[in-house]
Amino acid sequence: MNYRVILRVLGALLLLEALCMLPAFAIAEIYRDGDGMALLLSAGITGACGLPLWQLSKPKKQDLRAKEGFFIVALVWVVLSLFGALPFVFSRVLPNYMDALFETVSGFTTTGATTLVDFDSAPHGILFWRSFTHWIGGMGVLVLTLALLPQLIGRASFLMKAESPGPEFSKILPKTGNTAKVLYLIYGVLSLAEFVLLLFAGLSPYDAAIHTMGTAGTGGFSNYALSVGAFDSVWVDAIITFFMVVFGINFALFYRSITGGIREALHSEELKWFLRIFVAAVVLLTVILTGYYGNVFTALRHGSFQAASIISTTGYATTDFNLWPVAAKMILFLLMFVGSCAGSTAGGMKVVRVVLLFKLALREIHLTIHPRKVEAIRFEGRVVDKEKNRQITLFFFIYIACILVGSFLLSLEGQYGLEENITAALTCVSNVGPGLGAIGPAGSFADYGMFSKFVMVVLMLCGRLELFPILVLFHPDIWKRGN
Amino acid sequence: MNYRVILRVLGALLLLEALCMLPAFAIAEIYRDGDGMALLLSAGITGACGLPLWQLSKPKKQDLRAKEGFFIVALVWVVLSLFGALPFVFSRVLPNYMDALFETVSGFTTTGATTLVDFDSAPHGILFWRSFTHWIGGMGVLVLTLALLPQLIGRASFLMKAESPGPEFSKILPKTGNTAKVLYLIYGVLSLAEFVLLLFAGLSPYDAAIHTMGTAGTGGFSNYALSVGAFDSVWVDAIITFFMVVFGINFALFYRSITGGIREALHSEELKWFLRIFVAAVVLLTVILTGYYGNVFTALRHGSFQAASIISTTGYATTDFNLWPVAAKMILFLLMFVGSCAGSTAGGMKVVRVVLLFKLALREIHLTIHPRKVEAIRFEGRVVDKEKNRQITLFFFIYIACILVGSFLLSLEGQYGLEENITAALTCVSNVGPGLGAIGPAGSFADYGMFSKFVMVVLMLCGRLELFPILVLFHPDIWKRGN
Repeated sequence: MNYRVILRVLGALLLLEALCMLPAFAIAEIYRDGDGMALLLSAGITGACGLPLWQLSKPKKQDLRAKEGFFIVALVWVVLSLFGALPFVFSRVLPNYMDALFETVSGFTTTGATTLVDFDSAPHGILFWRSFTHWIGGMGVLVLTLALLPQLIGRASFLMKAESPGPEFSKILPKTGNTAKVLYLIYGVLSLAEFVLLLFAGLSPYDAAIHTMGTAGTGGFSNYALSVGAFDSVWVDAIITFFMVVFGINFALFYRSITGGIREALHSEELKWFLRIFVAAVVLLTVILTGYYGNVFTALRHGSFQAASIISTTGYATTDFNLWPVAAKMILFLLMFVGSCAGSTAGGMKVVRVVLLFKLALREIHLTIHPRKVEAIRFEGRVVDKEKNRQITLFFFIYIACILVGSFLLSLEGQYGLEENITAALTCVSNVGPGLGAIGPAGSFADYGMFSKFVMVVLMLCGRLELFPILVLFHPDIWKRGN
Repeated sequence: MNYRVILRVLGALLLLEALCMLPAFAIAEIYRDGDGMALLLSAGITGACGLPLWQLSKPKKQDLRAKEGFFIVALVWVVLSLFGALPFVFSRVLPNYMDALFETVSGFTTTGATTLVDFDSAPHGILFWRSFTHWIGGMGVLVLTLALLPQLIGRASFLMKAESPGPEFSKILPKTGNTAKVLYLIYGVLSLAEFVLLLFAGLSPYDAAIHTMGTAGTGGFSNYALSVGAFDSVWVDAIITFFMVVFGINFALFYRSITGGIREALHSEELKWFLRIFVAAVVLLTVILTGYYGNVFTALRHGSFQAASIISTTGYATTDFNLWPVAAKMILFLLMFVGSCAGSTAGGMKVVRVVLLFKLALREIHLTIHPRKVEAIRFEGRVVDKEKNRQITLFFFIYIACILVGSFLLSLEGQYGLEENITAALTCVSNVGPGLGAIGPAGSFADYGMFSKFVMVVLMLCGRLELFPILVLFHPDIWKRGN
C-alpha cells in the first residue's frame, strides 16, 4: 500500500472541503441564525486535519495500483462525510453524530434521504451546507466515473464494472485535467441556467440555489418539509422536472452535442431508452392519476414531476405520492431500480445495464427455441463482449442481494414494516431519497435506530460507488500486507 | 409442429386425470356431503374429452423436437388445470371458474395459495381432490425434471436451464420408464411413512391423508383454516417439519443412498448448503422469537416448522407468522426466494442456483482485486462451465423481473398494498403459498380481482416450470408455421 500517496490525496481533499464550508458560513453571516460559528469551527477542524496530511513529503513512487485506487475512492467518500457531518452536530441541528453522518453521506452520495424533521427552525447556513454537499457530490461522481478513475487505474480494473459500454468520455479528451475542466464547465453552466430560470419563476435566490444544487446532484434535499410542493407553482415544477431529466443524461453526450452537433448525441441508444422509459412512466402515471385527481392536467403535472424525480434518483416531491393508488406507487418503485444514464449524476442500476439485461434475457429465451443460433448482444452499435455481459448480470445479482440483505438488517431493530425496510434499502442503494410508507416524501428516516442508520450509510456508499469499491473492502486480500 | 403426438399425449393424460378424480369421488360417497355428483360429472367430462384425443391414429413421426417439448410441458399443466377446476365449480365450493382455476393451478403447481375462505362447509370429497392435485403435481414435477424431459428433448434444450448441475438422475437409470418407476416408488414409500406416522400421532385417516399429500408435493393445502395449527400437537408439528425438509431434498440422493449408501448421498454439496441455510434460519428465528413467545421451546417449535415450511415452499403454518416481529418475517421472505434442492418437489430458485450465484459474486469481487486470476467455479466437485453460469445469472434476472412485473400487474386492480402484491408475486413464482399482510397464513387470495388471479396463475406456472417453458410461449417464433 502506498499510504503516503493516499494520505496526501486525503489531505488535499480535506483542505478543499474546509474551503467548501465557507460559502455556507457566508450565508450564515447574512441570515444571522446563529450557525456561523458551527460552520467556521467545522471548517477550521477539517482544514487543520487536512493540512499536515497534505504537507507530507512527496513519496518517490507516485503511481497507484488498482487496490490503492479502491482505497482512495472509498476512503475519500467516508472521510469527507465524517468531517462534513460536523456542522450539523456543532449547530445542534442534528446533535446525534450518527444522524449527522447519515445526513452528510446522504448529501455527498446525492441520495437525499433525510433525518431532519423540523425544517422551520433549521438555520440557513446549515441547510445551505446540506444542499451544497449534493452539488459537490454530483460533481465528484462525474469526475470520478468519467475522468479520474479511467486514468488512475486503467482498463483492467474495477472501473470496467462501473463504466458503461456507452460513450467513453476519456477517449474524447485524453487528459484527466482537461476532462475534469470540461465536466465542471458543463455542470456549472447547466446549474446556472436552472438557477436563473428558478429566479424568473419567482423563487428567492436562496431557495433557487438550494433547489438548483439538489437538482444538479440529483440529490433531493429541500429547505421545506413539503419539498418542491412548498412553492405550489406550475413553472417551478416544470423547470425542475426538465432539469432533473437533463441531469440524468450522460455528460459525455453534452460534450458531444457541442462538438459534433446535437443530432449525433441524440443517436445514443442509452439516451433513447432513458427517454422511452421516462415517457412510458409519465403516460402510465397520468392515466392512473387522472382517476385519482379527477383532472388530466394535475395528473400529468404531478406524474411527470414524480417520474422525473424518481428515475433521475433526485427524490423531490410536489405531493405526497405515498397516498397515490398502489399501481402508481409501484411504477415509482420500479423506476427506483432503473435510475438514469451512466455518466450522469444519477444513481440506480443505470439504463444501460437494465437494457442489456433485457437484451440478454430475450436472447436466452430465443436460445431455448433455437439452441444453435448464438447472436451477439449489441449496444450503441457495438458488440458487448462476454466479460461485460457477465459483469452486468452479476452486478444485478449483487444489487438485489444488497437490497435484500439490507432490508433484513433494517428490520432487526423493528421500527418499521416490510414496505418501509425494502424501500429504504432500495432508495439508499439507488441513491433516490424517499421510500414508501412512513419514510415516504412526507416522512423522515429520523425514527430508524442507530444501527439501521449505519446500515443505510453503507448502502448509500455501495450504491454511489457502484458496489465494487465498497465491497472489496470486506475482502480479506485487500487488508493483507505486502500486496 | 407434430400436433397429433401432442394431442395424443394430452388425451392420455386427461384420461389419467379422470381416473384420479375417482378416489375423491369414493371419499365423497363415504362422507356423503353432496359433492359426489360434482366429482363424477367432472371425471366424466374429463374422460370424454380425453378419449377421442387418445384414439387419434398414431402418427408416423414419433419423435419430438425441443419446440414441441415446450408445448407439451406447458399445455399439459394448463389443460389438466382447466379440467381439474371443474369439481370446484360443479360443487359450488368455488362457483366462479377463475377462482376454481386459481385453486387448481395452485394445487398442481404445489403452490398452496388458496381462495377458499369457508373451510367448515367445504365437502370432504372436494377438499380431498384439492389436496390430491398437490400429490399428483409433486409427482409430475419429479418425473418431468428428473426423468421425462432429459429423454424427450436431450441435452441441447431448455432442460439445461431447469436441470441442476448436481447429480443427474437420468445417468443413473438410463431408461425413462425405469427412472419414473423408481421415483414413484420413493415418493410413495415416503408418503406412506408420513401417513402412518401422522396416524400414530392421533390424526384421523382423512386428515393424515390430506396433510401427507400437502407435504409430499410441498404444496400446503390444508382442510383447516388454521392449517397445521388446528391440531395443536407437538408431534404432528415435528413429523410434518421433518417430512417437509425431506421432500425438499433432491430425489436422486434418495436413490443414491439406497444404492451407494447414505454416506455418499450426504456428500452432496447442494444438500449441505440446503441444511446449512435451514439450520441458520431456525437458529435466527428461535433467537428472534424467544423474545416474542417468552419461551425458547415455543420459539424453536414454531421457528423450525415455519422455516421448513417456507424453504421447502410448502406453506403450512402452525401460527399466524404475519404477527411475528418484522425481522422474523424478513427471514421467511428471504427463504421464499431460495427454495429447496433441485430435483425435489419444492419450488423457489433452488439452493444450487443461489449458492452458485454467491460463488460467482465472490469471484467477481476477487477479480476486482486480482484482475488476472480467473478461477473456475466448482459445484459438487465439478467445474461449472461458462454457459451454465450465464444461464444461472440470467435465470436470476428473469426470476426477479417476473416478481417485479408481476407485483406491478397485481397492483393494477388496487385491492392491496405493496407488501401484499410483492409477496403474492414472490409466493406464486416460488410456489410457496401464503404471502405476508392480508394474504398471510391467516388470510386468503379470495379478494384479489379476476385479472390479478389470472396473473398469479401465469406466475405459478412460470415458477413451477422454471420460467423458460412458459416464457417461450410469448416468443413469436414458437407460433410460426413450418418450424
